[in-house]
Amino acid sequence: MSVRAGIVVTGTEVLTGRVIDRNGPWVSERLGELGCEVAEIVCVADRPDDLRGALEFLRGGGLDLIVTTGGLGPTADDLTAEIVAAFAGREMVLDEAMEKRISEIVAGFARRMKFDPEGLRDGTRKQAMVPEGAIALDPAGTAPGLVVEAQGPVVIVLPGPPRELQAMWPAAIAAGPVAEVLSEADSYEVETMKMFGIPESTLAKTLREIERDIDLSPLEITTCLRRGSELEIDVRYRDTDLELRDSLFVAIRERHGSFIYTERGESIDAIVAGLLADRSIALGESCTGGLLAARITDLPGASAYFKGGVVAYSDRAKTDLLGVPADLVASRGAVSPEVAEAMARGAMERFDAGLGVGITGIAGPGGGTEEKPVGYVCICVADADGNVLARDPKLPGSRDDVRDRSASVAMHMIRRLLIGEDLPL
Amino acid sequence: MSVRAGIVVTGTEVLTGRVIDRNGPWVSERLGELGCEVAEIVCVADRPDDLRGALEFLRGGGLDLIVTTGGLGPTADDLTAEIVAAFAGREMVLDEAMEKRISEIVAGFARRMKFDPEGLRDGTRKQAMVPEGAIALDPAGTAPGLVVEAQGPVVIVLPGPPRELQAMWPAAIAAGPVAEVLSEADSYEVETMKMFGIPESTLAKTLREIERDIDLSPLEITTCLRRGSELEIDVRYRDTDLELRDSLFVAIRERHGSFIYTERGESIDAIVAGLLADRSIALGESCTGGLLAARITDLPGASAYFKGGVVAYSDRAKTDLLGVPADLVASRGAVSPEVAEAMARGAMERFDAGLGVGITGIAGPGGGTEEKPVGYVCICVADADGNVLARDPKLPGSRDDVRDRSASVAMHMIRRLLIGEDLPL
Repeated sequence: MSVRAGIVVTGTEVLTGRVIDRNGPWVSERLGELGCEVAEIVCVADRPDDLRGALEFLRGGGLDLIVTTGGLGPTADDLTAEIVAAFAGREMVLDEAMEKRISEIVAGFARRMKFDPEGLRDGTRKQAMVPEGAIALDPAGTAPGLVVEAQGPVVIVLPGPPRELQAMWPAAIAAGPVAEVLSEADSYEVETMKMFGIPESTLAKTLREIERDIDLSPLEITTCLRRGSELEIDVRYRDTDLELRDSLFVAIRERHGSFIYTERGESIDAIVAGLLADRSIALGESCTGGLLAARITDLPGASAYFKGGVVAYSDRAKTDLLGVPADLVASRGAVSPEVAEAMARGAMERFDAGLGVGITGIAGPGGGTEEKPVGYVCICVADADGNVLARDPKLPGSRDDVRDRSASVAMHMIRRLLIGEDLPL
Repeated sequence: MSVRAGIVVTGTEVLTGRVIDRNGPWVSERLGELGCEVAEIVCVADRPDDLRGALEFLRGGGLDLIVTTGGLGPTADDLTAEIVAAFAGREMVLDEAMEKRISEIVAGFARRMKFDPEGLRDGTRKQAMVPEGAIALDPAGTAPGLVVEAQGPVVIVLPGPPRELQAMWPAAIAAGPVAEVLSEADSYEVETMKMFGIPESTLAKTLREIERDIDLSPLEITTCLRRGSELEIDVRYRDTDLELRDSLFVAIRERHGSFIYTERGESIDAIVAGLLADRSIALGESCTGGLLAARITDLPGASAYFKGGVVAYSDRAKTDLLGVPADLVASRGAVSPEVAEAMARGAMERFDAGLGVGITGIAGPGGGTEEKPVGYVCICVADADGNVLARDPKLPGSRDDVRDRSASVAMHMIRRLLIGEDLPL
């Protein structure tokens, strides 16, 4: 049997678009890993009618499991527990053990913050009210979570702060009624293959071709283009279809092997980090303005191989800090393959690194010319053994897009140089 | 009359949590600006039944306007136009003018990419099929948008790629049936005040105090903490309540004036950019690894004041490229207020800038000690006239949080130095 689930995200900030919701996607990924099919994510404001409507809608769809996030705070507009109780046809009752527990949790905090004791008592009592017969989950902050059987679906009620929600998740899925529902779920595996530099339509055509020879219908295949150039192929499959999944990957590999950079779902940043493990790298960035350095240092342990970088936004910084010859800048222009290479070599020398990267381009919106339009970017990756990879693509999109894609192309070029291959395009 | 709207986001990638949806929030913000109340955002997969169910749910809620995003591509699993047609009780018909238009758009692109002509023709024809009587909106990519009157609500059908969706928005809200619905909407203004370094609970208490003197109920006030330290207060109000909104801002200003950095909603990055207009700045970054440079160069025109930065991840880079004395690093440690100041001064000198920033800290997850735990960050902002601001906070959260918050604190310190004030904390 397949288990279908729905998620209700509450919160005016999320609904009005001021805050990007991260709970819905997080819970959805976890449910997917547990073999549930997530049918809907519904986002509503903290209005009782809208929350009630969303719950009724999901129950009407015959879902087995509903997860709500948010609306468990101590103030009057936090209504989720009450609404879920009514939805499940249960009274709200005071859980005295929970009240004591929350009091202990907030006591020290409240003293430090000089909270008003009366407001605090009211808030604590409110948070300790639970639907009759529900399972209360220990708070990770001050709000307990809930598991409530609701005349059809089982409802998991979780707090809004992502840290609290995530901390409470293991207890939520271990709670009796939830564990029972989940035991019915098919178990799925997911593998992700990623390719760089191949259009989505080419892959779509390839998949149609492969389907002439192999029945792919037992697999759930999703393709997704990221950052304009990274194509991800997610394959969700049952244990028993492992061979079929293998055949699919083999068939794609036969046709487009040189474009594939992983079959295990890692990000290009993580792959490059792995390849750099016993090497060292330094950067000279202009139009990306530190983005590539920020991406490389985003990963823990980067200090083992990342020597540093210069963000050389002015011509003078290029010459003074990266040793780019001033006459090269004058004759070729600051945005030129020659300057990109000189920046790569300069970074390598100044930081005494085994690998150097230079990026210079026109991110826009201004500064473009006919010969060098907005989006024209020169990228060079060089190593101390004399290997060089250079590209000067015209990248589409906004200033943000051009900067982001430049850093991505550079990452893929670094990988190629490190594995001793040229780019296939 | 108030206009209520709902948004349907389609896409398996979004529903499974692999991709964070940005269209729902974007459309929601635009609708809010137009005076609509957004009741729900529903996210469903590309399954006909689920999409149909979501549309029926929203119509059942009596909404005036429904916006769908995604599912307009050329492939078979892109079903939105068809489902919306059935939902509106209309047949799908070929829009021949649109077919010609899409053919022209894809022609050059397809030649370059060596697309299969047969697949291309099928895809183009599919994208040119529209519900009878619907208004087709000119494609921004290859997919036309739609405006369809659907026995109750008016439905706006928009493509999934954010760039295309956003480009099509003005035409969508200008289309006859949409404009008619929107003309019924109350018009609201929104002002955003932003504060740095004040806890949300203090502001909540202040708002309760102010409410004893002033009836704030005509205003819709939302507070939101971002990046752990920026507190945003959004006030939504009718034209006629402008004075009341003013009174609120005055009352907050009286109590917490020194924490306010804008009353007009600008980001701290934009404010700093404005203040830097006739100055110049250079950076020496360690733990933030280029993040601050990336944020500063994110804004067009940054080259006018941003000289550059050094990402000095190793001790040697700090001494070689920023002139930090090696014995200072040895005696005080690479993460110390003294080294942060030397980095700020080094950056200022090396790049010949009027202002220098130094950041060095322990982003984690490893590398912390009892004296200098993960999250300990030393930040210094100095200018050529001898003014200096320095802080060494212990910032909470993950590696990402520490890096992001360090860059934010630095931004606020830059602003303070530029306006000649110290931080109020």
